[in-house]
Amino acid sequence: MSTFQHIKPAGKAQFKDRYTTKAAELLTPYTEGMKGDIAILGAPLSKPSISHSGASFAPDAIRRCLSSLTTYNIEEETDISSKRMIDFGDITMHPTSIEECHQRIYQATKEVTETQAAPFTVILGGDHSITTSTVKAIKETKGTVGIIQLDAHHDLRNTEDGGPTNGTPFRRLIEEGHLKGEHLIQIGIRNYANAKAYHDYAIENGVTVYTMKDVRQREITELIQSALIQLEDNKVDTIYLSVDMDVLDQAFAPGCPAIGPGGMDPDTLAEAVQTAIRHQKVQTMDIVEIDPTLDIRDMTSRIASLLVINSLIN
Amino acid sequence: MSTFQHIKPAGKAQFKDRYTTKAAELLTPYTEGMKGDIAILGAPLSKPSISHSGASFAPDAIRRCLSSLTTYNIEEETDISSKRMIDFGDITMHPTSIEECHQRIYQATKEVTETQAAPFTVILGGDHSITTSTVKAIKETKGTVGIIQLDAHHDLRNTEDGGPTNGTPFRRLIEEGHLKGEHLIQIGIRNYANAKAYHDYAIENGVTVYTMKDVRQREITELIQSALIQLEDNKVDTIYLSVDMDVLDQAFAPGCPAIGPGGMDPDTLAEAVQTAIRHQKVQTMDIVEIDPTLDIRDMTSRIASLLVINSLIN
Amino acid sequence: MSTFQHIKPAGKAQFKDRYTTKAAELLTPYTEGMKGDIAILGAPLSKPSISHSGASFAPDAIRRCLSSLTTYNIEEETDISSKRMIDFGDITMHPTSIEECHQRIYQATKEVTETQAAPFTVILGGDHSITTSTVKAIKETKGTVGIIQLDAHHDLRNTEDGGPTNGTPFRRLIEEGHLKGEHLIQIGIRNYANAKAYHDYAIENGVTVYTMKDVRQREITELIQSALIQLEDNKVDTIYLSVDMDVLDQAFAPGCPAIGPGGMDPDTLAEAVQTAIRHQKVQTMDIVEIDPTLDIRDMTSRIASLLVINSLIN
Amino acid sequence: MSTFQHIKPAGKAQFKDRYTTKAAELLTPYTEGMKGDIAILGAPLSKPSISHSGASFAPDAIRRCLSSLTTYNIEEETDISSKRMIDFGDITMHPTSIEECHQRIYQATKEVTETQAAPFTVILGGDHSITTSTVKAIKETKGTVGIIQLDAHHDLRNTEDGGPTNGTPFRRLIEEGHLKGEHLIQIGIRNYANAKAYHDYAIENGVTVYTMKDVRQREITELIQSALIQLEDNKVDTIYLSVDMDVLDQAFAPGCPAIGPGGMDPDTLAEAVQTAIRHQKVQTMDIVEIDPTLDIRDMTSRIASLLVINSLIN
Amino acid sequence: MSTFQHIKPAGKAQFKDRYTTKAAELLTPYTEGMKGDIAILGAPLSKPSISHSGASFAPDAIRRCLSSLTTYNIEEETDISSKRMIDFGDITMHPTSIEECHQRIYQATKEVTETQAAPFTVILGGDHSITTSTVKAIKETKGTVGIIQLDAHHDLRNTEDGGPTNGTPFRRLIEEGHLKGEHLIQIGIRNYANAKAYHDYAIENGVTVYTMKDVRQREITELIQSALIQLEDNKVDTIYLSVDMDVLDQAFAPGCPAIGPGGMDPDTLAEAVQTAIRHQKVQTMDIVEIDPTLDIRDMTSRIASLLVINSLIN
Amino acid sequence: MSTFQHIKPAGKAQFKDRYTTKAAELLTPYTEGMKGDIAILGAPLSKPSISHSGASFAPDAIRRCLSSLTTYNIEEETDISSKRMIDFGDITMHPTSIEECHQRIYQATKEVTETQAAPFTVILGGDHSITTSTVKAIKETKGTVGIIQLDAHHDLRNTEDGGPTNGTPFRRLIEEGHLKGEHLIQIGIRNYANAKAYHDYAIENGVTVYTMKDVRQREITELIQSALIQLEDNKVDTIYLSVDMDVLDQAFAPGCPAIGPGGMDPDTLAEAVQTAIRHQKVQTMDIVEIDPTLDIRDMTSRIASLLVINSLIN
Repeated sequence: MSTFQHIKPAGKAQFKDRYTTKAAELLTPYTEGMKGDIAILGAPLSKPSISHSGASFAPDAIRRCLSSLTTYNIEEETDISSKRMIDFGDITMHPTSIEECHQRIYQATKEVTETQAAPFTVILGGDHSITTSTVKAIKETKGTVGIIQLDAHHDLRNTEDGGPTNGTPFRRLIEEGHLKGEHLIQIGIRNYANAKAYHDYAIENGVTVYTMKDVRQREITELIQSALIQLEDNKVDTIYLSVDMDVLDQAFAPGCPAIGPGGMDPDTLAEAVQTAIRHQKVQTMDIVEIDPTLDIRDMTSRIASLLVINSLIN
Repeated sequence: MSTFQHIKPAGKAQFKDRYTTKAAELLTPYTEGMKGDIAILGAPLSKPSISHSGASFAPDAIRRCLSSLTTYNIEEETDISSKRMIDFGDITMHPTSIEECHQRIYQATKEVTETQAAPFTVILGGDHSITTSTVKAIKETKGTVGIIQLDAHHDLRNTEDGGPTNGTPFRRLIEEGHLKGEHLIQIGIRNYANAKAYHDYAIENGVTVYTMKDVRQREITELIQSALIQLEDNKVDTIYLSVDMDVLDQAFAPGCPAIGPGGMDPDTLAEAVQTAIRHQKVQTMDIVEIDPTLDIRDMTSRIASLLVINSLIN
Repeated sequence: MSTFQHIKPAGKAQFKDRYTTKAAELLTPYTEGMKGDIAILGAPLSKPSISHSGASFAPDAIRRCLSSLTTYNIEEETDISSKRMIDFGDITMHPTSIEECHQRIYQATKEVTETQAAPFTVILGGDHSITTSTVKAIKETKGTVGIIQLDAHHDLRNTEDGGPTNGTPFRRLIEEGHLKGEHLIQIGIRNYANAKAYHDYAIENGVTVYTMKDVRQREITELIQSALIQLEDNKVDTIYLSVDMDVLDQAFAPGCPAIGPGGMDPDTLAEAVQTAIRHQKVQTMDIVEIDPTLDIRDMTSRIASLLVINSLIN
Repeated sequence: MSTFQHIKPAGKAQFKDRYTTKAAELLTPYTEGMKGDIAILGAPLSKPSISHSGASFAPDAIRRCLSSLTTYNIEEETDISSKRMIDFGDITMHPTSIEECHQRIYQATKEVTETQAAPFTVILGGDHSITTSTVKAIKETKGTVGIIQLDAHHDLRNTEDGGPTNGTPFRRLIEEGHLKGEHLIQIGIRNYANAKAYHDYAIENGVTVYTMKDVRQREITELIQSALIQLEDNKVDTIYLSVDMDVLDQAFAPGCPAIGPGGMDPDTLAEAVQTAIRHQKVQTMDIVEIDPTLDIRDMTSRIASLLVINSLIN
Repeated sequence: MSTFQHIKPAGKAQFKDRYTTKAAELLTPYTEGMKGDIAILGAPLSKPSISHSGASFAPDAIRRCLSSLTTYNIEEETDISSKRMIDFGDITMHPTSIEECHQRIYQATKEVTETQAAPFTVILGGDHSITTSTVKAIKETKGTVGIIQLDAHHDLRNTEDGGPTNGTPFRRLIEEGHLKGEHLIQIGIRNYANAKAYHDYAIENGVTVYTMKDVRQREITELIQSALIQLEDNKVDTIYLSVDMDVLDQAFAPGCPAIGPGGMDPDTLAEAVQTAIRHQKVQTMDIVEIDPTLDIRDMTSRIASLLVINSLIN
Repeated sequence: MSTFQHIKPAGKAQFKDRYTTKAAELLTPYTEGMKGDIAILGAPLSKPSISHSGASFAPDAIRRCLSSLTTYNIEEETDISSKRMIDFGDITMHPTSIEECHQRIYQATKEVTETQAAPFTVILGGDHSITTSTVKAIKETKGTVGIIQLDAHHDLRNTEDGGPTNGTPFRRLIEEGHLKGEHLIQIGIRNYANAKAYHDYAIENGVTVYTMKDVRQREITELIQSALIQLEDNKVDTIYLSVDMDVLDQAFAPGCPAIGPGGMDPDTLAEAVQTAIRHQKVQTMDIVEIDPTLDIRDMTSRIASLLVINSLIN
């Protein structure tokens, strides 16, 4: 790659072990016609967040963490070094028009999905406001969408009080007719993290809600299986997995804007995601609400990078 | 509140969702004759601590964390937005006389309790040295006190070596005749965190001691129930719950001055507190030993704020 | 204030020296008809910033720093404890519409100015994008505006590439006809901090530009005097002082989003501001581009609070 | 100790409770002929690490943490205040020759072991590269070595690509003939943390590998017992316990250079170590890969100090 | 020093250059009858501080910084490696009685001074409250004391409002008759850092006050010379130099509890100290108000260590 | 660059102002035969450092800072957007052989220089140990080398005590015959930062030494001019500028491993470098001893990036 024996291009890793493939090496910038195992698209938008958020830095942080993972899953004795993650890059955001940003996310997600470059797409937020746009795009390309949302919050706030914030994505999808309430299953909803009015809204609109008490009392795999069966029964065409990292306990996910105690541990989340993505209809996942400027040693992004790489094993 | 449409007073929250009540909104500054569900009193004293401590900043930090909680307990499907937390404010401390500080804590706690403004009082420390003063005040207003202490340490140190430090509150209560040893139940005591001499002292004085091994091997609810029955049997008039946050593992409570591995997780602590405060005689709780200057993103204060808000459900 | 001898309301200072007045005590929340010496208005907006910015936290940080200043200027032997700073509070921002935010800043500034509550108004940003809105409001209430801008950057970027960002306020004022180029004087412009195109734009539009070389080679008081005379000669009705804190060297202002070496020291900046506000036509000042989340021990906000309090001596 | 009543030598603890012995007080600098219960030797080397590492600061940090532990194990009701930890000090490292450093570690470990000052030796790394040198020394003084390695990584990398890095210690031991593959038992190996090639190498060389899945599904005591029996059966003369702290989950061990989710919790690690050291042949333990410059409040070193002090109870 | 070739005692420096003497090597723990060039005594007390302060950690921090200085002053071409700094250690503080702490400081300072071990004594605070005690001790051993105080604050607060805080040392000395106002010269007093009442008190009591304006407009050496002459003229027996590090600008002394802009730079402070200690009557110096827990990379303690080492050249 | 309208490749800047060229855009990866204005080569080596150092991260940090500079020097009214910085990338280092690292630096520097791709080469360290290797390479390609070293330290330590550390580069050059003492001019040498023995060595070997006192008392341009004339007179073929960033005061360069007060300010350093590189024989510059892991907001690297970009104006 270099003309000189002991010089490498700026920005490349210093040390290379000839027998080790890093997960980040599976990332291949998209070129037309390319096919791969999963597609990656960054949606670095966090200005719509109600509280100050640097979640726009997360796509870079998650990719950076892929550099510290290898491609070998020893528990499954599976090496994914021959898999390809097509990296579509990041959506460019407008500095001062959030409406334009959401529109671009919609359009970019649609264009990326239409390439059919990979059977599974991972969208790296950004805050949760992006999900209205991405789900709209998925619906147009893949049909009726069912959603499994791993989250401490309903994200069903009214839009009169602040427009399309990160507290509103599923409300907007329902109100704009892109999602039926019964096609939305929320897992991990936490005490004192939501208004009663929004729980009521969820129930009134047929949304299925599993609280952290449910997670503590039942097996996560069982909850996910129930969710998958329910969405199957409801005849959705495609299932979208929306992972708000604040579903995790604050000790494990110190980098989420809205941290708190009482959440999941990373093994439970990983198991939830693994169980879900083995289902054929689960074709899209987003990972949102990581603010690397608040995180400790990229801990939260490291968990996210594990979810990404794990999605290559299904 | 403001003369102008889009201006709010300095210090108030920027964003307001019309359907969401924040736990902090339940805080109402006390005025004479006011009645409420719980009373809050800050005891911002940490100069008596053996090691450098900023626990004096904790009352503000815990109140601040109440601003990020809502009033809705989804697991119990209970909204506490109609409850009132009477905020008596913070006791003013003397900058150079610790004796005077302890005296003021005693007096203020007594005066606050005598208002009978609420059936349950939460005292926000400060370090653990405050508990001698508060318990003395409670005894004078409510009669014989039984104590359930959640703590990694006995806090039964001799007072010759340093006076009324944060290592001595229960020793002083016993020695000054305000507390019988058999009315003190310690839960969560940890390895290598105490001298043998003080364990001996506890045993010799009839104090009940449950170590972390007991916590790991038995259900926390069962331990608390045993404690409550034992105090009932011992005919105490009122039960005081003293929560030293360092009973938690360091990964969950990074903001305690004396952190270490091997402690409880927050769910266990929350369950312990919930179980206790459902008992009618449990009328006072203190939360001590959080140093917000050492904490990470107020994680430890967040757990404390959850204990506070949870005490409205009983 | 309290019913009890040794209790104070939550949030108030612990220690009070009877002979010391803190600058923050001069802050009085506005009520209709009130008159004072200066008016304070917070414009906590930083979402328009090109780079991630928490400048929205600055109004609170600057007020907080006023709590660590007294009211006594020993060098002038002047005590300002009888002065009154009317605190109008902070403009509420829309979470997802930057256009609406700018409109609210315009309207609130206009309404506040129209109260004629004080002869001098200090607007606490926020990022520099707020200045288009505030100057427009000032122009409508006070007539032709001349601006002295202390800044490392021209802030004359084109608006096609990102809309009304923090790089564009003076361009927008000029293009929208609210400001003549010859009524804008920029001081402190720094090497490698601006594109040549924007220096050209400044020159072509008659803007006066003093670089840091000018600041190093001439007395700052002389530069300011020249600026004042020039604006006088140009018949402006009112002079607006816009202080972008990044005019300071990074060692002195670590909390600015766009830090760098080669800037002013705080004494020079304070002298510049003092010289300017002694002029009768200087009636408004903004202080922008402090991000307290990046700052070290509020150092940058401390300098800002000094500029605020100093504006009471003129 | 001092000529004056209220003066203490610089560096000594401010406060002394007459009934409390701190674990650090058991540390006694070695003098010839001294006998004790365990020997401590620091190997502050981290320059061989593949990534930037300050693990050379760990011996000091772990000793510092011994100052915050007492000598009383309340769960076992055992006071170890009469035990003696012989502190041999730290090996001096050559600033620019890593080969010389490894040689010095070998020689110092050998000399220290040959003193037979204590039945159990704890070596405080440093990074994992030290283990080749220490095990070689142990083998020469105690005979055939069996190793139980608690680690997220195999540390069986090839040496062509970087020489004796912290990724290679067990490979070098095997290749240089100091260790048989069947005498090496690895526990806690994690997904995406190793190349397939090195798992293959382990298997081909008869190394026993327990992944985190094994740890999650079986009792840790059972795994350790199996390991001990297997090494017994294989007729090793002595068993060496090598504790790479990154076997812990990142939330519990934030100070390891190579952190990640999905690891052990500290109770499991402590139980593993306790189970192992009760076995008579377990005579040496190293604790490696703690970088105090990355740690949070010495949390990771605190866990290490607990492993050290616990090794006095067997 | 060690039995083994490549092992050093725990806590000693790893690397030793045979031609380099570190300033810390000049520190020699005091034994009876010892004579040296300067005496060092730590007074690690900060509980009297009005605001939260970790200044009790400063004596250790300053000694630590002496380890990164050599003994060679290249500007004076003077090597002080043959000088001896007698380290008396640190005064032990009572955890809960500030009165007792002040008494111990008085007594220890007296005892140390009475040893006549060195012609110059440096007392390392601690907060400024210690100075009342140390000056009282000096007065009893050396006679009438004149003080040159380098400080942003008068430290002449009333004692009714908080007792002997760090804001009161010189007031207490004057009121208790240990110091005449005309024997106190304050240099570096800053705007908005003091109440008018205390400036008035200074003037009424004959205290000489030089503000930062005086420092900016006159040579610091000239100010110090004036001060020395004035004290000489006033027939003091000994001169005490009290260095409150907050006399420095916040950019240079980020570790002082009460930071702010507008202070001295370190060269000016060093020159002030050097000028003063060349005078024969200047026999004692304290350095106070460094909080290492707030400092950045020990910057403030580094400046202090330079003042200490420089005091060996006079 | 992308197939999609609103998507950009991962890692690229989000916002682009069409009229602004960032300095980083001038960086062009080298391809054979390429010609440019300056050549950049990273030497990310810091394992030879006596103290723990992350200076190996500096080349990346300095390049990152070039992204926040534009190409326009307003003081000179010069736009350098048409200049080209050829980026040769970074030398790959051997993880465990420092000797091999130094050899690679020598060889890579030689190969890069031999391309004659640019008239001026900037080498980004790394620690100061790299300079022996780079100067040897320059000598072989350009002839007799004269050095102007801006540094707080002599860097003339003996090599017996630690081999080729960052304290020895100029000693090794002299001892190995690559440099005559009279061809070395050291500027900025600081008090208590060096052993007398090394100052003696400098003088005995004809090295010219200017201390910080010289820098304070004379114009820096005059010092540099003297140095240039002296080297000219001594008939060197090429002049090498070696910039150890710790020549700066700690307040301005918080990211140097060996910080301290009493150093230069950035304007003086920039002027020194500018004055030097205008001389035709000054053809190489290194910038060393920045540890980005210790720095605050890349402040020290920002100054370095300014020195780099300024070298395009000569």
